[in-house]
Order: sequence, then structure tokens, then C-alpha cells
Amino acid sequence: MNKIEHLGIAVKDMAAANEIYTKLLGYTPYKTEEVASEGVHTSFFTCGESKIELLAATNADSPIAKFIEKRGEGIHHIAFSVSNIVEEMERLRLEGFILLNEEPKKGADNKWVAFLHPKSSNGVLVELCQDIASPISKSNINAK
Amino acid sequence: MNKIEHLGIAVKDMAAANEIYTKLLGYTPYKTEEVASEGVHTSFFTCGESKIELLAATNADSPIAKFIEKRGEGIHHIAFSVSNIVEEMERLRLEGFILLNEEPKKGADNKWVAFLHPKSSNGVLVELCQDIASPISKSNINAK
Repeated sequence: MNKIEHLGIAVKDMAAANEIYTKLLGYTPYKTEEVASEGVHTSFFTCGESKIELLAATNADSPIAKFIEKRGEGIHHIAFSVSNIVEEMERLRLEGFILLNEEPKKGADNKWVAFLHPKSSNGVLVELCQDIASPISKSNINAK
Repeated sequence: MNKIEHLGIAVKDMAAANEIYTKLLGYTPYKTEEVASEGVHTSFFTCGESKIELLAATNADSPIAKFIEKRGEGIHHIAFSVSNIVEEMERLRLEGFILLNEEPKKGADNKWVAFLHPKSSNGVLVELCQDIASPISKSNINAK
């Protein structure tokens, strides 16, 4: 894991949350993006080498709607930046972590992403992220 | 906020969690520390410019014991690094955030710390951290 790529925070009202995090951090989000496949609207703030990603549901079936219904608003996941997502997924599978997707999928902010089940990491939903600009293969492991 | 200083993760069994996060991150913690005043045992892993802090309760009255009893294991708080904690506390108070301590207090890993109530930041317990080596005053705001 190279760094914390971002922290995902589940919020009910994106406009209100954007205002709160703009006050908290002292600056505005650098982008907003809808990820239709996940049913989420996102807003990204930089923070050092990492980002804060606010996540609001766009429909009732969204994982974010279900998370908020069960646990309320709060930190939803932590995402780590990796150089080779395929190799990392294989390494973690062999270490006993439970992967929520078998292959990397396209996430927000131009990333290939994969998730680990919270029950294999002390209740923490872990996301792996690799820039989409980098090829997905086992061949670039030495670049990690 | 300069960067994400660390992410705090509440765990039941520190030995087991250390093993899991060593596998997840691919390396061992750089330090462990007990903070008697908070009733916690901590373990720190580096991750880029940030850290992952595992937190286990050392007694039943610990905030970590209460958190786990209520919500289960998981991400407990996000800590931001600030250059002048006194100034940041004052700025955030004026912005409407609820501070859980009126003055900075000594936390783990040689830091002055202060917490914001989760209800003023979308369910997220926010910690501010300043290195203890830096003086606590309003005079160094320009260094922020």
C-alpha cells in the first residue's frame, strides 16, 4: 500500500456536507462526480497526498443509502493506493482477506478499484485503487 | 488541515488486529504505546505521509470499549495534522463545530490533540493533531 488514497464519508445531504467540509478543511472540493453504477454522487477534497470523498446516495438501493440506514452518517471506507491492483488482490486473497469483487472495476476519480469485506479487516471496508492510466496486469509488479 | 495525520481503528484484540494489518499493509507497526488517560493501547503503522492507528481498550470505561459495544469494530476517528492547534480550535469553534475539549491535551505519538464532536461533522469524530515539539500558542499562526 503506497498511501491513503482517500477516505470515503457517507452523508445524507451532499450540499450541506459540502458546506461543512469546506468549513472544516478551509477550502472547496476540487471535483464532483456521479458514479451511476454505484448509485452515488461524490465530492472530492484534497488533503495532503490524500483525499476526502463525500458520498451521497442517488437512489434507495445504493450501498450508501443502506449504510446510512444501518449505521448513520460517518466514515464509510478507507482506500489505499496500489501500483498493481491485480497483484495486490491476489496477494490479499492468499493472505485470507475476502474480496468483494473478483476483478478490478471502474470507480470514481479515474481509478480501478476493488473492495475487501469488512469482516476480514476488523470492521473496516477497505478499497484498493489504481490509476486507470496504468495498465491492469500482473506484469508491472516490479514497479510497485 | 495539512494532511491526514492518522486514521484510528477500534479493535477488540490488539494482537489479532496487529497480525491482520501487518498482512494487509505488508509491514509491521513502527510503535506501540499505552495512553493511560484514555484507557487505550495503540499500535501505529506508517502509510505514505499518514499513519494507521489501531486502538484497543485497556478497561471497560475506555471510549474504545464503549464505541465497540455500540457500533462494533471499525474506523473510530480521522486525525488531521495542523500547524497551530490553538488557532485551528478557535477557527472551527467560530465556524460552528463542537469541540470536545476546551484546551489541547496530550495524546499518543507525541501530539497535542483536540476532538470535534461527530454530530457537527456528519457522524465523523475528527481529531486535530500538532507535534508536541511545536509550541502551543496563537503566535505561530503565520507558520500554518
